[in-house]
Amino acid sequence: MTSSRTGKITLVLGGARSGKSRFSEELASESGLERHYIATSQAFDDEMRARIAKHRADRGEGWVTHEVPLNLLSALQQVARPERVVLVDCLTLWVTNLMMAEAEVDREGTALAQSLRQLAGPVILVSNEVGLGIVPDNRMARAFRDHAGRLHQAVAAMADEVFFIAAGLPLQMKG
Amino acid sequence: MTSSRTGKITLVLGGARSGKSRFSEELASESGLERHYIATSQAFDDEMRARIAKHRADRGEGWVTHEVPLNLLSALQQVARPERVVLVDCLTLWVTNLMMAEAEVDREGTALAQSLRQLAGPVILVSNEVGLGIVPDNRMARAFRDHAGRLHQAVAAMADEVFFIAAGLPLQMKG
Amino acid sequence: MTSSRTGKITLVLGGARSGKSRFSEELASESGLERHYIATSQAFDDEMRARIAKHRADRGEGWVTHEVPLNLLSALQQVARPERVVLVDCLTLWVTNLMMAEAEVDREGTALAQSLRQLAGPVILVSNEVGLGIVPDNRMARAFRDHAGRLHQAVAAMADEVFFIAAGLPLQMKG
Repeated sequence: MTSSRTGKITLVLGGARSGKSRFSEELASESGLERHYIATSQAFDDEMRARIAKHRADRGEGWVTHEVPLNLLSALQQVARPERVVLVDCLTLWVTNLMMAEAEVDREGTALAQSLRQLAGPVILVSNEVGLGIVPDNRMARAFRDHAGRLHQAVAAMADEVFFIAAGLPLQMKG
Repeated sequence: MTSSRTGKITLVLGGARSGKSRFSEELASESGLERHYIATSQAFDDEMRARIAKHRADRGEGWVTHEVPLNLLSALQQVARPERVVLVDCLTLWVTNLMMAEAEVDREGTALAQSLRQLAGPVILVSNEVGLGIVPDNRMARAFRDHAGRLHQAVAAMADEVFFIAAGLPLQMKG
Repeated sequence: MTSSRTGKITLVLGGARSGKSRFSEELASESGLERHYIATSQAFDDEMRARIAKHRADRGEGWVTHEVPLNLLSALQQVARPERVVLVDCLTLWVTNLMMAEAEVDREGTALAQSLRQLAGPVILVSNEVGLGIVPDNRMARAFRDHAGRLHQAVAAMADEVFFIAAGLPLQMKG
């Protein structure tokens, strides 16, 4: 089914501190391909800066890093190549960035999802599952949760493999 | 095991925007039976009204809709028939409605669960998993989460099939 | 692989009211071993006292109970024996207690995880998955969620079996 395509699409979902980034980095390393990392995070405060620095240290050497808070699809179109694996960490921060930029989140998400299978090389997309707690009081948080959920459905529908990570352990939901 | 029963009971759990309603509607459509929809939602504000209208539009034509905020068991006893499939969307809103009506939620939930296997036709019950976030600050939210969790356990124990949905993908936990 | 070890390590993760305690108690009872229960809870208010009393009543007779809010590793080293099964309920309350005592949570968690496979008998550890909702506003809640997630990863890596419980149903993630 995927034999005519050069780029396998993998979605890795999980909670906070579930080990989803480490699992995804191991997937990338096992591919033996040149590793590119698209970081969607933006450091607005010290806590965020510390998280980013820790992520980078955990990842180790051997990665080419791209900082892409907003234009994720065009970055993927530029970076993806058959000889590279691209790891995007993470989609939920991208949604946050789009909301802060007052972009049309669902339209951007649909465009991303519908272009994934035309990329020139494999991509691993990491995202936080955020919809399994109590409905947030806050209207923005509810909107965020809705955008993220719709994006996960759209990406999962296009993905070759989907993993759900808990306590560092993968559960394969598709593929 | 279920050969002497006319009504298969299916529980579909998932997070916000996980695709649980769409999955359930597809299950109902695949049955080839006459489709009845029990909506537990009540429109108190514009956001809720918009969600309800969107749900109805997503569902498409060919459904008989019943609005049942509180008396779910008696509605199921009236509506369930061998030639129909009944979709209840969703149990967590029913719990909210019962709490607002100051009903005895756990007693109502137990009565519902214990009557499911005597219904005259198949039923699909959709519900939100809400217990996988941080303990809420708010006492009512904690009570809601406890009621919902107990109801899910009681219904799952009586169900023939239980699915957990994430990113639109089903994980079968029972059946 | 575990043939030279006397103590199987089991991690049982789940949401609030998911049935994780009952599942763990059944696992313990099925072992046929002498049952010891390590309760990490501390009753600070009436709601907590009621939860503890309900847990104890649900558990039934035949358990030796130890109340251990903080020194979990040394308690396990004292209580674990080949002829006993020890149930720890729950790790997330232990994390809360450590944070309130201003202990170094991650160091304590790593020490616990790394000692589990040297214990003299089987242990079942219950914990709440708390990382699948919206990022909490509150800094302490974010820190708690991070500590809990790191602890779950560390314990799961050392465990022989890991279960994720939803609606009272187990999903085996390891073992």
